[in-house]
Amino acid sequence: MNLITLTTDFGTADAYVAIMKGVIAGVAPKARVIDVTHDVPPYGIRDAAHVLRCLRPWYPSGTVHVCVVDPGVGTDRRILLARCAGSFFLVPDNGVITFVHRDAPIEALHVVENRQYFLSAVSRTFHGRDIFAPVAARLASGVKPESFGRATDRLELLPEEWNVVLTREGVAGRVIRADRFGSLITNIHAKDLGPLIHRPQQTEVRVNDASIGPLRATYADIPPGEMLALIGSSGFLEVAVNRGSAAARFGDLETLRIRVLRVGGGD
Amino acid sequence: MNLITLTTDFGTADAYVAIMKGVIAGVAPKARVIDVTHDVPPYGIRDAAHVLRCLRPWYPSGTVHVCVVDPGVGTDRRILLARCAGSFFLVPDNGVITFVHRDAPIEALHVVENRQYFLSAVSRTFHGRDIFAPVAARLASGVKPESFGRATDRLELLPEEWNVVLTREGVAGRVIRADRFGSLITNIHAKDLGPLIHRPQQTEVRVNDASIGPLRATYADIPPGEMLALIGSSGFLEVAVNRGSAAARFGDLETLRIRVLRVGGGD
Amino acid sequence: MNLITLTTDFGTADAYVAIMKGVIAGVAPKARVIDVTHDVPPYGIRDAAHVLRCLRPWYPSGTVHVCVVDPGVGTDRRILLARCAGSFFLVPDNGVITFVHRDAPIEALHVVENRQYFLSAVSRTFHGRDIFAPVAARLASGVKPESFGRATDRLELLPEEWNVVLTREGVAGRVIRADRFGSLITNIHAKDLGPLIHRPQQTEVRVNDASIGPLRATYADIPPGEMLALIGSSGFLEVAVNRGSAAARFGDLETLRIRVLRVGGGD
Repeated sequence: MNLITLTTDFGTADAYVAIMKGVIAGVAPKARVIDVTHDVPPYGIRDAAHVLRCLRPWYPSGTVHVCVVDPGVGTDRRILLARCAGSFFLVPDNGVITFVHRDAPIEALHVVENRQYFLSAVSRTFHGRDIFAPVAARLASGVKPESFGRATDRLELLPEEWNVVLTREGVAGRVIRADRFGSLITNIHAKDLGPLIHRPQQTEVRVNDASIGPLRATYADIPPGEMLALIGSSGFLEVAVNRGSAAARFGDLETLRIRVLRVGGGD
Repeated sequence: MNLITLTTDFGTADAYVAIMKGVIAGVAPKARVIDVTHDVPPYGIRDAAHVLRCLRPWYPSGTVHVCVVDPGVGTDRRILLARCAGSFFLVPDNGVITFVHRDAPIEALHVVENRQYFLSAVSRTFHGRDIFAPVAARLASGVKPESFGRATDRLELLPEEWNVVLTREGVAGRVIRADRFGSLITNIHAKDLGPLIHRPQQTEVRVNDASIGPLRATYADIPPGEMLALIGSSGFLEVAVNRGSAAARFGDLETLRIRVLRVGGGD
Repeated sequence: MNLITLTTDFGTADAYVAIMKGVIAGVAPKARVIDVTHDVPPYGIRDAAHVLRCLRPWYPSGTVHVCVVDPGVGTDRRILLARCAGSFFLVPDNGVITFVHRDAPIEALHVVENRQYFLSAVSRTFHGRDIFAPVAARLASGVKPESFGRATDRLELLPEEWNVVLTREGVAGRVIRADRFGSLITNIHAKDLGPLIHRPQQTEVRVNDASIGPLRATYADIPPGEMLALIGSSGFLEVAVNRGSAAARFGDLETLRIRVLRVGGGD
């Protein structure tokens, strides 16, 4: 239990992340720290929530995933420590754990409030350094989750509109974010498609009202420059352009409606 | 004494940083290397000086902080090894250590000139690889600072204009840089404010001649979109916009004059 | 043999790289992972080929260099494991190993095809996670190269046009990429210049048909803002502007022709 991952919106041009690592190194010299990303858009809670969801299944049990995307720092928002499927999530209570929570049961949830594990002076603007870093380091060193504060069963979640909608015709969802290749990552998981996932030839994917054909298996199934939908590597439906950018073809990604419809015959 | 941090203007798209890490790994396989930032603006000595200052207090004693922001590479500029408050700074002698030097006494200062610790061939364009990396690795492996060269008491400092000015009305300073959130980090430290820091209601902060109100405690003290001044997490006065960018509201940050004035009654 | 480097075009805003590191940590907890760059332009095989070439000489023997710049993922392109000068290269068979191959003999070459070392489910879109990461981790843990698949002597190389041309007048080459400082890195190595490298005063460097003077020793040899050619830190001819950007002065870098001509007297 000595692996710590960091997901923040701090960017990489400032000293913020390195300061957190200095604090961790001082408390837990043997802990290994892995940067997930520090390029979450500023205050991008939904983006970070998706990153955490994608990350979780691939890390060893006991890993401490720290997320500091925290527009509420300095207010009375709480900090939570959740155990999900054997991993720990140390996060502000602002919904960033929503998608992890949907994928895996929360096995334990504690409020992080025991100041003996914080730095001695806690600022009002940089809890990443003053609370998240030392708490993560203690946790990675073997301190028990319940030591950090009382158990709770309350946590903030992202609005319902970010849930997938199952209809008689199929499944409707939205775009969570565009990745570096311009692929649109949606909130529709392969599991949401039920048996359709095994009959791609009976599907039609629509972006708003425009059809982009059936579910495909890989980018190379279509010519370069054409648009397709496929299940991405983390299990979510992606709208992509083979060797191009889907994001560049749309305006506001937030308002796009993505649907996978059942078409044609079959049982 | 086996933690090494790296601060450069090399960017992250080229192999430069990884080459330094390869050299370090060859010399000191057990040393741990932490990236601070490689996104210092090209030749941004003042930016790097601020990063080093912010970093220093949070790292364990004995850490080796390496900074390669070095427009003078290939000239006769010296390379220095300074010990400040128990940490080491391996830097080009171009003023990048100025702010660290203002915050903490330099306990020892040596010229790095003993070629037995350099790579056998030293280029004229990449001392990060040929000198900084192997010297840092040796230092982290326990070689004594005085082994690298003679002691000196001379070092380059940034121009005086980057000092804070204390006046009868208050304190005047300048913007060092904008961080990722567009907050303007100034050279005015909380300590420069003297007793005013405890009477924020008696202060008025001005950007050039425009008032932005008294010192605040946290971003959330004002509505989103409004501008405020507060003491940032590293102790320096910041001019920020709650959930927005202050930098986007000004032109040339270099010429801004930031003042904290004493106003109203009180002793 | 437990150092792994990663070179990808995944960017740093998504979870892809961290997922690879999670897989590696699960298989080989003691392996050390070094990020080279994840900012290779999307599908930038030539850029990545240059990064690998620059990297190789500076890493300890036995290092596993992983490169996932892989536009052909999901097709039948092969994955190769090459041993060059004592280091390992785990790469898609798309030419990305071309420049390493030109610099150092390939001592062993195997097809990576033994599924027992892959993740149990292999996607069609993310072999970085499903194949490259676990294979690199096994290799760093001591599994023999021949365990991963059959030997081969066939591999894809970049087109001949990326070879340097030696003529009676001198050497002609092209621009591989611009680095962060806007310096144009060419495919002309110091060794290609033969004895001319020792008689820089007898050279004239041309960008297309414009002369930029003789080979220089360092940026500081000319005034700020002027253009020069010099042998960069990795041994390749660079066209640079002292404290400025050469890339900003040209349009399409792909079409530039760079020549080093022999001029004046001498033997």
